[in-house]
Amino acid sequence: MTAPPPESSNRQVPVSSTALLTDKYELTMLAAALRDGTAHRRCSFEVFARRLPEGRRYGVTAGTGRFVEALDAFRFGPDELAALGNFLDPATLDYLAGYRFSGDVDGYGEGELYFPGSPVLSVHGTFGECVVLETLVLSIFNFDSAVASAAARMASVAAGRPLIEMGSRRAHEQAAVAAARAAYLAGFAGSSNLEAERRHGVPALGTSAHAFTLLHTTADGGTASDWEKAAFRAQVDALGVDTTLLVDTYDITAGVANAVEVAGPQLGAVRIDSGDLGVLARQVREQLDRLGATGTEIVVSGDLDEFAIAALRAEPVDRYGVGTSVVTGSGAPTAGMVYKLVEVDGIPVEKRSSHKQSHGGRKQALRLAKASGTVVEEVIHPAGHPPEVPADLVARALTVPLVRRGEPLATPGLDAARDRVADGLRSLPWDGLKLSRGEAAVPSRMIAPARGRS
Amino acid sequence: MTAPPPESSNRQVPVSSTALLTDKYELTMLAAALRDGTAHRRCSFEVFARRLPEGRRYGVTAGTGRFVEALDAFRFGPDELAALGNFLDPATLDYLAGYRFSGDVDGYGEGELYFPGSPVLSVHGTFGECVVLETLVLSIFNFDSAVASAAARMASVAAGRPLIEMGSRRAHEQAAVAAARAAYLAGFAGSSNLEAERRHGVPALGTSAHAFTLLHTTADGGTASDWEKAAFRAQVDALGVDTTLLVDTYDITAGVANAVEVAGPQLGAVRIDSGDLGVLARQVREQLDRLGATGTEIVVSGDLDEFAIAALRAEPVDRYGVGTSVVTGSGAPTAGMVYKLVEVDGIPVEKRSSHKQSHGGRKQALRLAKASGTVVEEVIHPAGHPPEVPADLVARALTVPLVRRGEPLATPGLDAARDRVADGLRSLPWDGLKLSRGEAAVPSRMIAPARGRS
Repeated sequence: MTAPPPESSNRQVPVSSTALLTDKYELTMLAAALRDGTAHRRCSFEVFARRLPEGRRYGVTAGTGRFVEALDAFRFGPDELAALGNFLDPATLDYLAGYRFSGDVDGYGEGELYFPGSPVLSVHGTFGECVVLETLVLSIFNFDSAVASAAARMASVAAGRPLIEMGSRRAHEQAAVAAARAAYLAGFAGSSNLEAERRHGVPALGTSAHAFTLLHTTADGGTASDWEKAAFRAQVDALGVDTTLLVDTYDITAGVANAVEVAGPQLGAVRIDSGDLGVLARQVREQLDRLGATGTEIVVSGDLDEFAIAALRAEPVDRYGVGTSVVTGSGAPTAGMVYKLVEVDGIPVEKRSSHKQSHGGRKQALRLAKASGTVVEEVIHPAGHPPEVPADLVARALTVPLVRRGEPLATPGLDAARDRVADGLRSLPWDGLKLSRGEAAVPSRMIAPARGRS
Repeated sequence: MTAPPPESSNRQVPVSSTALLTDKYELTMLAAALRDGTAHRRCSFEVFARRLPEGRRYGVTAGTGRFVEALDAFRFGPDELAALGNFLDPATLDYLAGYRFSGDVDGYGEGELYFPGSPVLSVHGTFGECVVLETLVLSIFNFDSAVASAAARMASVAAGRPLIEMGSRRAHEQAAVAAARAAYLAGFAGSSNLEAERRHGVPALGTSAHAFTLLHTTADGGTASDWEKAAFRAQVDALGVDTTLLVDTYDITAGVANAVEVAGPQLGAVRIDSGDLGVLARQVREQLDRLGATGTEIVVSGDLDEFAIAALRAEPVDRYGVGTSVVTGSGAPTAGMVYKLVEVDGIPVEKRSSHKQSHGGRKQALRLAKASGTVVEEVIHPAGHPPEVPADLVARALTVPLVRRGEPLATPGLDAARDRVADGLRSLPWDGLKLSRGEAAVPSRMIAPARGRS
């Protein structure tokens, strides 16, 4: 599926290797650890969020599938090694030339909800092979989970009305592709982004822009209505009456009349992208019905976030187009996850100085629910030592194997992750779905390892 | 400089073509415009921000260099065309197969400050060749300018103390590379990101992580101090005494003592990553001086933003490590720029409906300054028709040619852009550098085109 390189410079997105998407200090630590032999100690690193973004009640784990692919492409070829020769010694360069992750990775299934402290990913191997993955792991999980977590709130309040992700233009051009994937995973119907369809199978959706209507301006004394109708006619000719016409370039009432005049009452949808969307949606619905276009849907867009979507629930809106807020995590543009060394040769380790306490030892997690399915607690326990489960509760293990001896295991894919998000949202206590600021939807309990470090 | 592809899947970052980093509606508009012949009309599109992010006084134009490269790679090869065959007609696919931008691009030099309405980029060509660039243009400018604008505020308040960008882990893995470039452009000394050094020449900098100290934990009854010293010794052995030792894994006072004991008073620097950084910096400075390490510098990091940096100005801090806040635009993760059709076959056009007024016609801009160099006004005028300049003011043309007949012109590069940001900040009225919320540093004046559309 890769395109032939363009004829000239391809420096814009040169990397098929992911190995340099890395902070320099990881490689200098590796160099020092190779020198004193500690690079070969068996280690476990864990990815978790110390807290949820301010006021959020849950997070959505996203990025797992992308990480497993990126891990496979984490190789140091001649060009990568050439870029490192100015600060690494020959032994380290030699180690990197042969690098291929050979350890194990466990984690939450993609789409699983997470809470403070949830071990969403655990990486096991030698210090050397694990330490160099820190930046890549965190970049993927922090961005994808930030978008998915915001998108899930939107999907939850949209209450079944389709959401279209159309924020590519508000994110870095490659981040936009990941954002489309994360939004889809969290319940959006699709995205405007074409690369997300090619790369990840996210359904590509689209309408039209004001530019297309303005393009039909003429200098010969026609009116705005003439130009708008010419634009609508061209769109309907090319795309059929099932298309979505953008009606707010000049005057919305005239725009709706022109749309139905051109496309007929079978017109698929109209889009409103400015103004007071609630008021306009009602007016446009009445007008469409009056014109006999009772099946024509109304798509609204323009600075929507989860609060605006919720505020439009009582209005005759059929679909929402969401841009900036979803791709920027709606106020929380990064999930704030960290990658921490938790175990060395079987010894639990943790940082001790103020404010950044972590908890040593390899961990796994269970989610406890009532028989009704409503979740009551997230239990984070030492790996291999799950707690006893009270008889009236049902426990579900959250930690699943993702990579074994360096080989990615088959993952269930994006549609399974979508189901997992939907199941997760359904399993929360009622309060957990509130948009208002509050505590995590369920409490997390951390069970300390039986063997402490002195 | 491209690595050989890894042996297995390279779906993670497959694209050397940038053509699918595009919203679907651009291609359906193209299809409709090809059908009715309007695709060949001569058009100008403009990129501008309607307003600055809440409370900001200026923005920094960034992304220009990346956009010119990405434009060159905007080609539809067989794989791109295959991905579009399900919704585009043969004539449109044929047009795309031969697509190569052949128009002109003008814009602000990279690093130039911008204000509301500033035409930071103008794209001239046929509707067909311009409309398909919307998403790519905006993704690049919105992300890069958001980061550069935040970074410039930080560089401005750091008042000459070096800033290190280390937020790769809080951004999408490819966005992280662009963020490093944007932060450097805006005045940072360098970045932790290795790919940014390879791709853009951004100096790569780094220290060490807590994991490296924790790695030296043993089960044989040693103390935290023993482990820390073993870690410091390994780092100094590998990297020399000029390195930066991370002293807050266990106890900062013991950490500083261990650092100087291991490295000697010639130690390059210590880093503090947690706690009350101002108080700790003072304590550590006194301790270092007492130990004779008077030349050892202090690097602080941990959730710093422009306000925290300013608050540390009176403290003995030598360098700042900045992560999350810079790569997420410090509260404004996207610059909010739009790409608007402003002229069709010489006719100025603009959208008329509420709240989203744009201003028709091709535009250029001048910046007026006093003889002292202090800027007083941004004047946006019809292209080719600059206003008269009062005798007591100096005018500088902001709009420069970037691409001619599809060919990129030589651009001055990243170091020139750094100089331009620094010059721009120096040229602002005093109030314009305040961190507090306020109006744009200088007013913008928009001169309407002489010939209005009816």
